[in-house]
Amino acid sequence: MYAPGDVRYEERDDPTIVEPTDAIIRMTATCICGSDLWPYRAAQEVRDPSPFGHEYVGIVEEVGPQVSSIRPGQFVIGSFFASDNTCPHCRAGFQTACVDRRPIGSEGAQAEMLRVPLADGTLVATPEVPDDTMVPSLLAASDVLGTGWFAAVAAETGPGRTVAVVGDGAVGLLGVLAARELGAERIIVFSRHEPRQKLAREYGATDIVEERGDEGVAQILDLTDGVGADSVLECVGTDQSFKQAIASTRPGGTVGYVGVPHGVSLGAKELFGPQVGLRGGPAPVRRFLPELVELIWNGQIDPGQVFDLVLPLSEVAEGYRAMDERRAIKTLLQP
Amino acid sequence: MYAPGDVRYEERDDPTIVEPTDAIIRMTATCICGSDLWPYRAAQEVRDPSPFGHEYVGIVEEVGPQVSSIRPGQFVIGSFFASDNTCPHCRAGFQTACVDRRPIGSEGAQAEMLRVPLADGTLVATPEVPDDTMVPSLLAASDVLGTGWFAAVAAETGPGRTVAVVGDGAVGLLGVLAARELGAERIIVFSRHEPRQKLAREYGATDIVEERGDEGVAQILDLTDGVGADSVLECVGTDQSFKQAIASTRPGGTVGYVGVPHGVSLGAKELFGPQVGLRGGPAPVRRFLPELVELIWNGQIDPGQVFDLVLPLSEVAEGYRAMDERRAIKTLLQP
Repeated sequence: MYAPGDVRYEERDDPTIVEPTDAIIRMTATCICGSDLWPYRAAQEVRDPSPFGHEYVGIVEEVGPQVSSIRPGQFVIGSFFASDNTCPHCRAGFQTACVDRRPIGSEGAQAEMLRVPLADGTLVATPEVPDDTMVPSLLAASDVLGTGWFAAVAAETGPGRTVAVVGDGAVGLLGVLAARELGAERIIVFSRHEPRQKLAREYGATDIVEERGDEGVAQILDLTDGVGADSVLECVGTDQSFKQAIASTRPGGTVGYVGVPHGVSLGAKELFGPQVGLRGGPAPVRRFLPELVELIWNGQIDPGQVFDLVLPLSEVAEGYRAMDERRAIKTLLQP
Repeated sequence: MYAPGDVRYEERDDPTIVEPTDAIIRMTATCICGSDLWPYRAAQEVRDPSPFGHEYVGIVEEVGPQVSSIRPGQFVIGSFFASDNTCPHCRAGFQTACVDRRPIGSEGAQAEMLRVPLADGTLVATPEVPDDTMVPSLLAASDVLGTGWFAAVAAETGPGRTVAVVGDGAVGLLGVLAARELGAERIIVFSRHEPRQKLAREYGATDIVEERGDEGVAQILDLTDGVGADSVLECVGTDQSFKQAIASTRPGGTVGYVGVPHGVSLGAKELFGPQVGLRGGPAPVRRFLPELVELIWNGQIDPGQVFDLVLPLSEVAEGYRAMDERRAIKTLLQP
């Protein structure tokens, strides 16, 4: 990315082993994240031309001398932060706070080859190399599925709960899927886009609310006999969406938020009166990866449907445009 | 309260039964709350001369025709919101969000007699009339004990957890007691006042940190091998104390906040990176009252020690002054 709106496909040197704990992966597929659109839309600074992308699945090409559990030839998935998976934060399930964490985004996963630091802690291998049809779902597990899953867990989704989801992007839609898998009784989605509503219903949504802001909140209250939702997943990250999420939650309920906050400011009005719990941040996808890979491997979930556009990596610029213009939910890129 | 700094003891008409669900209580004791100091210090508006106070224990004098579980002669305790204890929010343990809640503060519990609406839902009776020595502890249950308890519960305090408490007022000190009762392994208190440090230690504090802000946070990290506290109780309500609480919490840990927020504003920096859960608001003291009364009745806890000044109700103005100047932790008033 050279500047907002300016993404180019260029030749770069292949990455090499830098640290003895690295692995080099030949990408089977990569993709564009909703969070990549913040800098693309100038809502976040782009200083120099930078490699981009942090979602990846592929075949291990080479590992450093200290890597012991991952070996060349394996098909692997990792999350957007490399983590050692042994420090106190990792052991507590918050690998995104690993004392030695490294952002994959700065390596740039929208590429043919990727260096993954801390390979033993970061990567999860599938039982064997999957066939092509399973690749989109496994790629989804690298970020958006795990992020939606964390939103659902953070919001204390569970059997019998009424869940509302703010945001109908890939993360919101997979938050719906997660809520269903976690046993939610009712799943209400805010969405005004017909194709996304359709996928939301396939993933388990029971109700769709097209209104936003105060009107949307009024709808939620109406659907819940004035009580509010038990668990609300905030999957956007704007001030409006945060406040809409809090106002949709019943007293004592919980908002799980994973949208990277932009311009969010919460004061006494949101924090005190509503008596709503808040938990979120960058999703510790690594915590959930083994379970999610197994659910995909067994055919129990099909998160790959969020990819509604597939392009060769060389057409990455068109992939960004399509998502920016909301012509695509999520673009899969094939190296 | 006529204006900030201007509290007067005056004759008013005795309250009477207004609604059939009311009870009239002859106060055994009442007190001044840290939150009463906000308007006293002009941090909150005082429009007209207003009755004040929302903490109370006393003998039921009279009940309305629809009151069935409370009867004249009983010694009772209630919380700062009257609540029906039957609506969905009450049944979920958030009586402070009762669909029919009424603030006791607007009745004014710093008085000889008090009207309590929704008596059946609001009041908890002791097995018999207690002797005088137990009155301060039962009065503490009316707000500060229940509020500290909620802070500890909201922060997910439990066996083996490391707890930090921001605020050494009555609520913070009773948050320490609550954390001990809930099984916390280690309890760190921010305090620079020797008498409060002493009471904190009696209530179970294992470590005292005298520093505040960034230096205080550095101390917490130092005491926890760089990890942070599992559960942090925010019992002040300023922007600084909120941020100090969040920064003291480990990733994945939780802040329970009960200090009424004044000037608090949380943005992306506090909400996203730290991965800290937040839960708080006006404490649903009513949820905990039966259990707390039992613990006091059995002599297991002694929260009444937070009252370090006892005055006749007629000297209420001096009670406010003593707390404002931090000469007293909390003032008990005897009608």
